Amino acid sequence: MRLLTLRTSEGTTAVRQDGGTLTEIPGFADVGALLQDPVWEATAAAANGATHPLEGADLAAVVPSPGKIICVGHNYRNHIKEMGREVPEYPTLFAKYAESLIGPNDDLALPQESDAVDWEAELAVVIGKQGRRISEAEAGDHIAGYAVLNDISMRDYQFRTIQWLQGKTWEKSTPFGPALVTRDEFSPGPLMTSAVDGDVQQSTPTSDLVFTPEFLVSYISTIITLNPGDVIATGTPGGVGHAQDPKRYLQEGQVLVTTIEGLGQLKNRVIKEA
Amino acid sequence: MRLLTLRTSEGTTAVRQDGGTLTEIPGFADVGALLQDPVWEATAAAANGATHPLEGADLAAVVPSPGKIICVGHNYRNHIKEMGREVPEYPTLFAKYAESLIGPNDDLALPQESDAVDWEAELAVVIGKQGRRISEAEAGDHIAGYAVLNDISMRDYQFRTIQWLQGKTWEKSTPFGPALVTRDEFSPGPLMTSAVDGDVQQSTPTSDLVFTPEFLVSYISTIITLNPGDVIATGTPGGVGHAQDPKRYLQEGQVLVTTIEGLGQLKNRVIKEA
Repeated sequence: MRLLTLRTSEGTTAVRQDGGTLTEIPGFADVGALLQDPVWEATAAAANGATHPLEGADLAAVVPSPGKIICVGHNYRNHIKEMGREVPEYPTLFAKYAESLIGPNDDLALPQESDAVDWEAELAVVIGKQGRRISEAEAGDHIAGYAVLNDISMRDYQFRTIQWLQGKTWEKSTPFGPALVTRDEFSPGPLMTSAVDGDVQQSTPTSDLVFTPEFLVSYISTIITLNPGDVIATGTPGGVGHAQDPKRYLQEGQVLVTTIEGLGQLKNRVIKEA
Repeated sequence: MRLLTLRTSEGTTAVRQDGGTLTEIPGFADVGALLQDPVWEATAAAANGATHPLEGADLAAVVPSPGKIICVGHNYRNHIKEMGREVPEYPTLFAKYAESLIGPNDDLALPQESDAVDWEAELAVVIGKQGRRISEAEAGDHIAGYAVLNDISMRDYQFRTIQWLQGKTWEKSTPFGPALVTRDEFSPGPLMTSAVDGDVQQSTPTSDLVFTPEFLVSYISTIITLNPGDVIATGTPGGVGHAQDPKRYLQEGQVLVTTIEGLGQLKNRVIKEA
């Protein structure tokens, strides 16, 4: 099942995608709200609300306001290598706040303060069931599904200090969507790519993760409760602009496309912030 | 004005403290909810709900579920020195999730996974008005007031990787309160202390901050919108257990007291997690 958050004239609504048709799931303003329903999967499957064509749909971030966004650094061997680091024993975790999210086709605005806006294609895990100290064996049951996220990073701010947060959480900078694909229809493995104006920058199978989604759910939930709608951004592979020679960053007028086969595509036009 | 979040048999409620009396502010489940009211200060001042004695009151974290908790590292010269670092040009920012907060008098449970649970007394700034790219001159208007927070840190997890988040956001580990003291009644300056079983560990005036609350509001809001109820934990001074020789961490049965003159006290008994 593919679940999306559609912008309408009255706000937003959770929808189910069947082919080219989006069907409203009445009573749920977005996919994050839907996931609070303990039987969200049955609710979504049975929904029979108003329909909209997928084509031309104005989509919000699939979960617009997660309680937590937990990001993982250094989780693909080729990105670890390009950043000059060792394969780690433990996952590197940092945060992003919900205000940083944008829809899968929204414009990506370069802030006036940064000259070093870079891409990081990532597989996002969305939590569907609350838990603490979840074992790796049980972790799958806590995963609602997967989506695409681009962990856009302002490298100048990221490296101003030893903690990355300030380069990772700029307002309206992180495309997330287009759909939550439930875990019965997707497993990590398919190719993930990012491309700038059609020029492929990153291209790595999502099976190359050092720490799997199940491991990450178990590890993070040792520390803190994971709740429905929480998002784990599982890290980016090699090919970021900052690691190229010369370094390469997003420029006004470019189009950034981030794709995971089977999940879909984020397509964001780069504009200069007004 | 002093505003608190009181636990009652029906849940929680925002209250105003006048001397030894707490007066309910009807319609607001906690101080975070109250701050969403654009005229929260007038609403709180005029409230005339049921009353409770302060003595013996069961207090929740003053803002139990902030949209964002932004923590600052390396913000007191004596702590920067004890951790072996230079006075920074920019504030070091990292996150903590809302699930880590506990009330000002709640038990502090040592998790089974960590042997290195340390204290970090901090002055917390609570946002009262939304803003982006707030100037330093205007920042005061966006500050609702101040509270005490202890940024309890699991040092073993904090230093497992180069990003601190996983040592900073353990479930129910961060005492926060007892009250939000509005900014007309408090300015940074008074002494902040932490003590373990009465033995003073940290003792530094809150005027010794490298980056002031106003600077931090301006800096952070350049990156992301600050919303009512958001919390900035402004960093800890020297005297943490990890920097002592030998290193010293919290032990079962101890009592940790964190005080800022004029704001109040957090008093947390250290227990072993069940």
